[in-house]
Amino acid sequence: MDRSAEFRRWKAQCLSKADLSRKGSVDEDVVELVQLLNGREEFFTTSSCAGRIILLDGIVALKKANSDAILKFEPFILHVQCRQLQDAQILHSVAIDSGFRNSGITVGKRGKTMLAVRSTHGLEVPLSHKGQLMVTEEYIDFLLKIANQKMEENKKRIERFYSCLQHALEREAITNSHPREKIRGEENSSYSPKKKRNPEKARGKCITEENDKELENDDDDDPGISVPFFPEDY
Amino acid sequence: MDRSAEFRRWKAQCLSKADLSRKGSVDEDVVELVQLLNGREEFFTTSSCAGRIILLDGIVALKKANSDAILKFEPFILHVQCRQLQDAQILHSVAIDSGFRNSGITVGKRGKTMLAVRSTHGLEVPLSHKGQLMVTEEYIDFLLKIANQKMEENKKRIERFYSCLQHALEREAITNSHPREKIRGEENSSYSPKKKRNPEKARGKCITEENDKELENDDDDDPGISVPFFPEDY
Repeated sequence: MDRSAEFRRWKAQCLSKADLSRKGSVDEDVVELVQLLNGREEFFTTSSCAGRIILLDGIVALKKANSDAILKFEPFILHVQCRQLQDAQILHSVAIDSGFRNSGITVGKRGKTMLAVRSTHGLEVPLSHKGQLMVTEEYIDFLLKIANQKMEENKKRIERFYSCLQHALEREAITNSHPREKIRGEENSSYSPKKKRNPEKARGKCITEENDKELENDDDDDPGISVPFFPEDY
Repeated sequence: MDRSAEFRRWKAQCLSKADLSRKGSVDEDVVELVQLLNGREEFFTTSSCAGRIILLDGIVALKKANSDAILKFEPFILHVQCRQLQDAQILHSVAIDSGFRNSGITVGKRGKTMLAVRSTHGLEVPLSHKGQLMVTEEYIDFLLKIANQKMEENKKRIERFYSCLQHALEREAITNSHPREKIRGEENSSYSPKKKRNPEKARGKCITEENDKELENDDDDDPGISVPFFPEDY
C-alpha cells in the first residue's frame, strides 16, 4: 500500500472510532478548528483539549489528610496526524506564528507523522500540603481570576490559529494551482490569474490585530525576560 | 554543497561563536550531555538551560506598586540541530523515553532539522498583585522547597537522558556496523561478533531504576490523572 493510501486508511479508522474521552465529544472552542483539519485530505486530529482549569487530586483534597492539592491551568493542546512531513511543516509554522511556541513534530518508525500543538502558557500552584491549606481563600479567588484570564487569552490564540490555518491552506492551494494555471493560461489567453493580484498577502505571514506582547512573555525558551532568583537574597 | 557538508559548515560556525548567554557558559549539570552531543558528527547543540527557579519581574517586584511577581520553576531545555530527520528521530525517542514528553522536531524550509527537548515539569505561582503580596512567607518557603525538589528530579531526568542517549548511540553503532561485520566475517572466519551477545539489551528501550510514577504525574497530555475544577463547587 502506498503512503497516501495508508494515511487514508489510518484517517478513516481513527475518525470512525467512538470518542473515548471522558467528555465524549470535542470541546466547543475547538470544534471548528478540528472540522477544518479533518476536512482536509492531508490531516486528521487524534486528540484535542481546548484548555482547562483543574484541581489535581480532586476537590476533596483541600481537606483530606496527606494530600497535596494543586491548581493548574492547562492550555489548548492538539495532536494532528499529517500525511507527510511537508504537511506537518506547514501546520507547525501556523502553530508557531499563532503563539504556540512549544509545538513540535514527531516522526514514528512506521512513518506516522504527528504535530503536537502546545502552548507555553501555564499556571501551576500548590495549594495544600498534607491536607493543610497553605493559602487564603482570597488568594484562591485571585488565582481563579488569573486562570480565567489565561483561558480567555488561550481562546484568542485558538481563534488566531484557526485564522492563520485558513490563510496558510489558501496559500498552499494557490501555490499548488500555479502549474495548472500556467497550462490553462497557455491554452486559453482569456485566463486571468485573479489570485495573484495580492502576492504579498499570499506570501506574508498571518497578520493579526492582537497585541503579541503578553503572549510572548510566557515563553519558556526566552531567557531575556526573567531574573534568576536566589533564595538567600530574598 | 551537499547536505552533509552544509551541516558540517553550520556546526563549525555555531560552535566557533562566543557563548552569548548572560552566563556566558554551559550550565554545569548539562556540560557532559552537551559534550556528548557535540562530539557526534550528526548533532550539535544550539542552546541549553539545565533548569532554573526564577522570579519574573525582578526581586524588587514583591514590594513595587503595579507589579505582579511570579515564582517559576523552568525545567531543562535543550535545542539540538540534527544532520538529518533520522538523527532527530533517534534523539526524540531518547528524550521521550527519558521523560521529556513535550519534546518535538522542527524542520525549517532550508532543511534545518532541530530537536527541542522539553519537559512537562513546571511550577508557576503568582505571588503579588499590584505590589501587594498575596501569600505568606511560610508559603514562599513551602514553594521554594517544592521548586528545589523539582530541580532535583529535573537533574535525575537529565542524567537519565545522558544514559539513554549513550545506549541509543551504542545501538546505532551496532546497527550501522552489521553490514561491515558481515563482510569481515566472511573474509575472516575467526571474527566473533561480541556486540551481538546480548541482542535484547541492544534492542530494548533504555531501562532505568528510578520510579517513573512521579515523573509521569505531570504529563500535560494525559487527562486521566486530573479532575475538572468548578469554582462554584468549591
